[in-house]
Amino acid sequence: MSFASDNWAGASDAVVAALAAAADGFAPAYGGDPLTHEAHALAAAFFEREVALFFVSTGSAANSLSLAAASRPGGVVICHVDAHIARDEAGAPGLFAPHQTLDPIDGAAGRLTADAVAARLAEYPEGVVHHGRPTAISLTNVNEFGQCYGGGEVAAIADVAHARGAMVHLDGARFFNALAHTGAAPADLTWRAGVDIMSLGFTKVGAFCAEAVVLFDPAMAEDFAYRHKQAAMLFSKNRFAAAQAVALLKDGHALALAAHANAMATRLAALLEASPEAALLFAPEANEMFAYLAPALSARLAAAGIVAHAIGVRSRLLPPAPGPDWTLQRFVTSFRTDAAQLDALAAALSE
Amino acid sequence: MSFASDNWAGASDAVVAALAAAADGFAPAYGGDPLTHEAHALAAAFFEREVALFFVSTGSAANSLSLAAASRPGGVVICHVDAHIARDEAGAPGLFAPHQTLDPIDGAAGRLTADAVAARLAEYPEGVVHHGRPTAISLTNVNEFGQCYGGGEVAAIADVAHARGAMVHLDGARFFNALAHTGAAPADLTWRAGVDIMSLGFTKVGAFCAEAVVLFDPAMAEDFAYRHKQAAMLFSKNRFAAAQAVALLKDGHALALAAHANAMATRLAALLEASPEAALLFAPEANEMFAYLAPALSARLAAAGIVAHAIGVRSRLLPPAPGPDWTLQRFVTSFRTDAAQLDALAAALSE
Amino acid sequence: MSFASDNWAGASDAVVAALAAAADGFAPAYGGDPLTHEAHALAAAFFEREVALFFVSTGSAANSLSLAAASRPGGVVICHVDAHIARDEAGAPGLFAPHQTLDPIDGAAGRLTADAVAARLAEYPEGVVHHGRPTAISLTNVNEFGQCYGGGEVAAIADVAHARGAMVHLDGARFFNALAHTGAAPADLTWRAGVDIMSLGFTKVGAFCAEAVVLFDPAMAEDFAYRHKQAAMLFSKNRFAAAQAVALLKDGHALALAAHANAMATRLAALLEASPEAALLFAPEANEMFAYLAPALSARLAAAGIVAHAIGVRSRLLPPAPGPDWTLQRFVTSFRTDAAQLDALAAALSE
Amino acid sequence: MSFASDNWAGASDAVVAALAAAADGFAPAYGGDPLTHEAHALAAAFFEREVALFFVSTGSAANSLSLAAASRPGGVVICHVDAHIARDEAGAPGLFAPHQTLDPIDGAAGRLTADAVAARLAEYPEGVVHHGRPTAISLTNVNEFGQCYGGGEVAAIADVAHARGAMVHLDGARFFNALAHTGAAPADLTWRAGVDIMSLGFTKVGAFCAEAVVLFDPAMAEDFAYRHKQAAMLFSKNRFAAAQAVALLKDGHALALAAHANAMATRLAALLEASPEAALLFAPEANEMFAYLAPALSARLAAAGIVAHAIGVRSRLLPPAPGPDWTLQRFVTSFRTDAAQLDALAAALSE
Repeated sequence: MSFASDNWAGASDAVVAALAAAADGFAPAYGGDPLTHEAHALAAAFFEREVALFFVSTGSAANSLSLAAASRPGGVVICHVDAHIARDEAGAPGLFAPHQTLDPIDGAAGRLTADAVAARLAEYPEGVVHHGRPTAISLTNVNEFGQCYGGGEVAAIADVAHARGAMVHLDGARFFNALAHTGAAPADLTWRAGVDIMSLGFTKVGAFCAEAVVLFDPAMAEDFAYRHKQAAMLFSKNRFAAAQAVALLKDGHALALAAHANAMATRLAALLEASPEAALLFAPEANEMFAYLAPALSARLAAAGIVAHAIGVRSRLLPPAPGPDWTLQRFVTSFRTDAAQLDALAAALSE
Repeated sequence: MSFASDNWAGASDAVVAALAAAADGFAPAYGGDPLTHEAHALAAAFFEREVALFFVSTGSAANSLSLAAASRPGGVVICHVDAHIARDEAGAPGLFAPHQTLDPIDGAAGRLTADAVAARLAEYPEGVVHHGRPTAISLTNVNEFGQCYGGGEVAAIADVAHARGAMVHLDGARFFNALAHTGAAPADLTWRAGVDIMSLGFTKVGAFCAEAVVLFDPAMAEDFAYRHKQAAMLFSKNRFAAAQAVALLKDGHALALAAHANAMATRLAALLEASPEAALLFAPEANEMFAYLAPALSARLAAAGIVAHAIGVRSRLLPPAPGPDWTLQRFVTSFRTDAAQLDALAAALSE
Repeated sequence: MSFASDNWAGASDAVVAALAAAADGFAPAYGGDPLTHEAHALAAAFFEREVALFFVSTGSAANSLSLAAASRPGGVVICHVDAHIARDEAGAPGLFAPHQTLDPIDGAAGRLTADAVAARLAEYPEGVVHHGRPTAISLTNVNEFGQCYGGGEVAAIADVAHARGAMVHLDGARFFNALAHTGAAPADLTWRAGVDIMSLGFTKVGAFCAEAVVLFDPAMAEDFAYRHKQAAMLFSKNRFAAAQAVALLKDGHALALAAHANAMATRLAALLEASPEAALLFAPEANEMFAYLAPALSARLAAAGIVAHAIGVRSRLLPPAPGPDWTLQRFVTSFRTDAAQLDALAAALSE
Repeated sequence: MSFASDNWAGASDAVVAALAAAADGFAPAYGGDPLTHEAHALAAAFFEREVALFFVSTGSAANSLSLAAASRPGGVVICHVDAHIARDEAGAPGLFAPHQTLDPIDGAAGRLTADAVAARLAEYPEGVVHHGRPTAISLTNVNEFGQCYGGGEVAAIADVAHARGAMVHLDGARFFNALAHTGAAPADLTWRAGVDIMSLGFTKVGAFCAEAVVLFDPAMAEDFAYRHKQAAMLFSKNRFAAAQAVALLKDGHALALAAHANAMATRLAALLEASPEAALLFAPEANEMFAYLAPALSARLAAAGIVAHAIGVRSRLLPPAPGPDWTLQRFVTSFRTDAAQLDALAAALSE
């Protein structure tokens, strides 16, 4: 039983069925197939507008290609110090866009604010080539501390970015969890709030392997198609990525799975909150919980075969640990998390 | 019905079943799972030696990362003018290894020869930095014209390459078809013949999406692990790529699928050979057939819903077209090709 | 005494004087100085229009940054097989623009023709991402075989390129020699003929080290300024590069030096033509002569301390060698070449 | 009159004379000339060991190529937040080594310490590919706040770096000033203290344009030669870069020029220290002084035509400004700074 990450879960039944159904017969390669067209149509409905959609195999790929699409010579991407792009992709953004560097800033609870972004942008005076120039702001929603941005917060940051000529990228590896928490329309957390490009994650919510880059300005698609192919990310049997997305977009399946994960996280948070050996950092918003655990509790969880993820973070703005040997741990729920698993956790907590 | 490419086929039943079986429960992400370990063990048995194995999502990715692993500053890769890396990957090798350029040479029937490689190597005198230096020779087996290299041919080229300090890369997108045709042991077409790195293709033979980089020198694995991650190619749910490889490596499943495809191609070749409106370029070896088709035949095939692939090639060493309007077409068979499809083709040919 | 290359010559007296004069006092760094402004003004007068001008330290840098400015994802640059960018820059264009690859074609006497370029462009059908897409055509004038393009030839190629959405780059490492030979106005060999970007070489004609990228569309300058800085090519003491350019542009100094070099080459060609042991390949146009030399002559030249450059070429369209042991050699003249040197060569030839 | 930067100064008389002397005759291009050989011999004597030496045109180039030489996939370079490579090169290190990212840390007075480096290294556990891995530590001596490292400090950092498999790079754009201040032997501040690669700056101390990469392990030279050429940094007329280095290395010329600049800085510091309108940040060590200036003083300096450099820094560890409108300014002296200039400054200060 694992709360280490939502990518320890397998795939939802609907996804499995969709893949099996797609396995027969012949279909044009490289996205010329009916399932890919259906995925595009569903994405347009989901976002209430025409979008360009490209499937890739990993979230790192979605992020890196998104940022590359926004990159220009001397380009700088402002993000949070604990952003996945800054800490967990081994430098992928720089590999796919060698003309671009990341410039991370800190923010409480994993959040960037419009003020913080504006202050950092001011460190790049117009025309001073030595420092480079801001080409993108990258937000994560759900962010790396399990917190969500509302549409207004995104819009405030986007306004600052656009005023300086920088694009806005959204890392939406857990976007469906953000939707489930906020109740917002997808459009309201993205293009209506000023997001230009997003990484839309299907994998963590219930797919095998299907991440997507979404370009809200379809005019960017022509260039991106070459970028995507040159990045070796164009699936030959693209229909299988599309089949997963179709299964997850249809009838709100992904949203339902995300809502389940979020609900499990809320219950998990309550369990942790009730324990004197655990100190929750943030109120539950989506499907990630962060807590300091007393050493004895960590040991009991390990003994019970319950896996959390001891995590290293860079933000200096976290509440301090209650005790010197308490460790920061992350608990993530998924569509696969069920009541029995929470009961087992409860038992280990109360031992 | 399609003979356009083996990537128009879906996935084999065993692959579908393996994916469904892998969908339950939790498993460590990023390759720490039992299926990934099983895939590694099967690969070691397949190649009769320890190898390092990394899954990626496309053949372009496998090729690009393989070549990048061999690359050094000023690096030059010698390959055939119609090699997939030179013609069909939109420059991916250069993106993943900006210090490297391709230097294609022509060769009859898609083949490089040791003599041709040696002659090209001689254009790079040692120490002349202006020209760069050869860092890899890339072969394709089955090659781009459906022809196979035997172990001796590979070894002759590898000797020339190694003598000049260049590594040998094998693009094995259709490697199982080469094995089925030659009857050779996998080791004899690869490391025993001097191949250092290979792209091992599972997708065309029957997977959804599972390509692999195989490093025959496992000491290269430490560096490659970072390269692979930075290239955004490390699947979070790696078990699903592994599950496909396991299904295909176990009990010779891939080899059986490839043998079937090859047998279908041989029958298809016989059909084409018998037609006065078709001129086959090469005797059947694996699962790709190239033929010039008379315009009337092309029209009849299209009318019958039979898809071949009108192909542009760079080699100047092909037999000439029998007539001015005849077009060069490629027919590819797969595990999905069956007798009924060949009967339909036969009918269209003899109309 | 050397005919190996014009970069074996030192610097003209006017250049030396200009550098000495620039050495005193203080001046803003990074191009904010009066000499840089003067160089820009002289370049505008030279080209009869506003241009953006950036100094770099080598011709490879000028070429690579020029092509990078034209590059887009999946980009392909068409050039001659013996182009400096393809054969003598160790892959620099790919390093500075990893999204771009070169696709060389052959042409008699080092020339590209509009027909040959059009034929190659046709190998890149619109929208087929697999092959990439043409983003630039690169010409060299004086070309690698010492031959010059006239404005009409450039325009014919540029028309074909522009029709396909590709930019036109001119490698003008020996541009002043081309001007001296053709008598054309600089504008007529460049922007009026459709050249978008050029590498303008001052080094070979008489500078220490001063090459320039010229952007004929000044709107490209903003982006290029960041590219130039990020490529580590922005001189801190830019005034010293500018001083050399100013000395060479002022009062037609560079053109006079080039005319001298060309005149010396014509005389050198006559000497070679008169020798039964030398077979000149092309009539003299600028300051490079190519000839097959009989072995005995090569030996005599070496004994006399006369250095030519034994050259390897890729073009298959050269006249054949008169004898089996004759070697292809290049003779280059410069502002430093004088009558005494030619007399010494004449003596060695007639021994 | 300018204290903005030492790159506002021109070139020393000895450098001018050396260039003029090198301008005559013919010499092999690309470093095959006698002056280049002489520069290599002088560098070996200077460092008391064989080194590999490559000339480049800018300090950014020297830094970027040095770091690229140390780079491996997933590579991370630890440096100070105000390091030139992090703040003033527009992302050049990433362009020349796309597999590498910078990870800056803060440190008082521009200094890294062994403890701070060790703490940052600990954020990269061995084998965790997600974060990447440290491949180099980059120090600057004289650092960005005008402070010098002693050999012991360098060695302490180098020990930590080497223990983790990272190389040590030294940005020595003002290395001669560090030598003049510390009185150390060049070897003791570099290879004897564990420096693997350095950028050796000749430009700021008195050259036109001559920076060098020094590899203390000459076995790295073979690879580096290709890297250097591919980076478009190999001067064709390399003798002119070499001539400047020779003039500066011979008879301690560079050291004498640096000592003069340092002495001028000490006097400048005394002037600032005596002024109630200026607050010096650090005691003078080399040729850069940092001070907060009262607004009235800034205005008087500007009116007197005395240029300092209003500087933005990232370090959070500086002493605070004495007043709200005081600005942080940098004063740099050079070989060109003289008593009359200091007198003029003194007059403006005491007005």
